[in-house]
Amino acid sequence: MKEHQSGCPIAHGLDTFGDRWSLLIIRDMMLHGKKTFNELQKLEEGIAPNILANRINKMVKDGIIEKSANPQDKRVNILTLTPKGLDLAPIIIEMIYWSGKYNPPSTPARKQMFKKIARSRQDVLREILNRFD
Amino acid sequence: MKEHQSGCPIAHGLDTFGDRWSLLIIRDMMLHGKKTFNELQKLEEGIAPNILANRINKMVKDGIIEKSANPQDKRVNILTLTPKGLDLAPIIIEMIYWSGKYNPPSTPARKQMFKKIARSRQDVLREILNRFD
Repeated sequence: MKEHQSGCPIAHGLDTFGDRWSLLIIRDMMLHGKKTFNELQKLEEGIAPNILANRINKMVKDGIIEKSANPQDKRVNILTLTPKGLDLAPIIIEMIYWSGKYNPPSTPARKQMFKKIARSRQDVLREILNRFD
Repeated sequence: MKEHQSGCPIAHGLDTFGDRWSLLIIRDMMLHGKKTFNELQKLEEGIAPNILANRINKMVKDGIIEKSANPQDKRVNILTLTPKGLDLAPIIIEMIYWSGKYNPPSTPARKQMFKKIARSRQDVLREILNRFD
């Protein structure tokens, strides 16, 4: 994908994670605890394996995701969000809030998440980051 | 562009403004006070007129931007961010912060914006919204 390269921080963000898939992969790692290629392939939105591989590799290159061999099974890579990747949490939280405000959440879990964010973004952020301590 | 339609609020956000251009158009309206097609055509990243028209129309349809005739010149449309569009400010602020943290801001104005956000997101948000009162 062609990059904007204007030096604008918003353009930089779009260049890094502003495609149709990267934030959904990050969502599944951050909120649903997924950490392998196979787990991520079950993305609710249905992602093609080559696109998934491509986006993971780009995010590894950009320092958002780290790949390491699984000590239990060397053929499987473990994918972890780096501190830079975890720092995307506030953006994801604000997106969930904005969508929930204008598009009523469609499941009880999503409704609860929206209410929690409305109550305290800081608490939600802490709760997410605690899972990765 | 094909939409995800999973009901996930992050996917909904990506469906609405997650292309390569929409947030840059919103940035120029929100932070640089642009309000006509001609002003937006001078987007720093160089946007083609047909893509600009297409994105503006999608955002009008999605209730993010409003079009109205300029009382001084009926041939020119005035573009305004709706409350739903202005509510994207926290997402934009978090993107600026994240990019600035991992990619040192490249101009004095960007450096200052990053520092202001680091000091108080609330103040930056208020300052942005005050311009649209």
